[in-house]
Amino acid sequence: MCAVHVRHKPLTSLSKPRQLVLVVPALKSQVNLSRMVRLAGCAGITRIITSGPSKVDPKIARDGADHVTIEKRRSLVPVLKNLKQDGYRIVGLEQTDDSHLIYEYRYQAKTALLIGHERHGITDEELAVVDDCIEIPVYGMPFSYNVVTATTMGVYEYCRQFPK
Amino acid sequence: MCAVHVRHKPLTSLSKPRQLVLVVPALKSQVNLSRMVRLAGCAGITRIITSGPSKVDPKIARDGADHVTIEKRRSLVPVLKNLKQDGYRIVGLEQTDDSHLIYEYRYQAKTALLIGHERHGITDEELAVVDDCIEIPVYGMPFSYNVVTATTMGVYEYCRQFPK
Repeated sequence: MCAVHVRHKPLTSLSKPRQLVLVVPALKSQVNLSRMVRLAGCAGITRIITSGPSKVDPKIARDGADHVTIEKRRSLVPVLKNLKQDGYRIVGLEQTDDSHLIYEYRYQAKTALLIGHERHGITDEELAVVDDCIEIPVYGMPFSYNVVTATTMGVYEYCRQFPK
Repeated sequence: MCAVHVRHKPLTSLSKPRQLVLVVPALKSQVNLSRMVRLAGCAGITRIITSGPSKVDPKIARDGADHVTIEKRRSLVPVLKNLKQDGYRIVGLEQTDDSHLIYEYRYQAKTALLIGHERHGITDEELAVVDDCIEIPVYGMPFSYNVVTATTMGVYEYCRQFPK
């Protein structure tokens, strides 16, 4: 192969703004939120709602910090209820007794993706509001993906289904 | 929804060991290698070859560190040539003038996924050995995904195509 590396190809444009919102609990590690902001920026996501500190490290989030709005809320349950009223499907990224395999799940365009806490996952109160849960198969130790890694897979799958 | 959170479901078993090898340059940040080890462990990948330091932080890699073999090599070009002789298809995760859109790319089961350096990407010498490059669309700032985020997407897409 005689390919030539192309640094920073033009961005892929979207026919309309991404209708994917990330809903993130108060994480153990603030680094994880900053990493999600960079992910969101690159994926064309413009809105993150969190019940944790909204402070972002610009060295990690890069320019994502300027292009993603981070809304800080006291509790996520009312946020999820409001999103549902606004027509969003609430999708929890969590292993439950009723979760869909991510490989087989079809996202609705207007989706709020609820992320679980690193240790505790999604709370029972939040699960009661969730429409669907999706789970990512784990094939080996240490049993669970890092929270940003899991979020990356959930976002990637969404972008794959809505590439434009 | 009245789903119940299931913590650490049984692992998804593979009918045969994953034939995906990660080939990783000397990264700027050693944290990134540790994060890749956790990703690899969870994805059932057992082999990482790197030309950088092979030291892994067990607080980040978790039990992945016990289940993933990290081979340290002076240079990656001979590694890639050997893998190719062993029947691996060499796939570079890089934007080039000839790269395939990741959404449309069909992996061969026996694949060596070459990761680019955080700043410099894949070198010209490595690109000369690569069979195919795959690129991940970027929809917004900061123009490029973090190296672990990109690796996560490449690994996720492979696992999606070879779920068992």
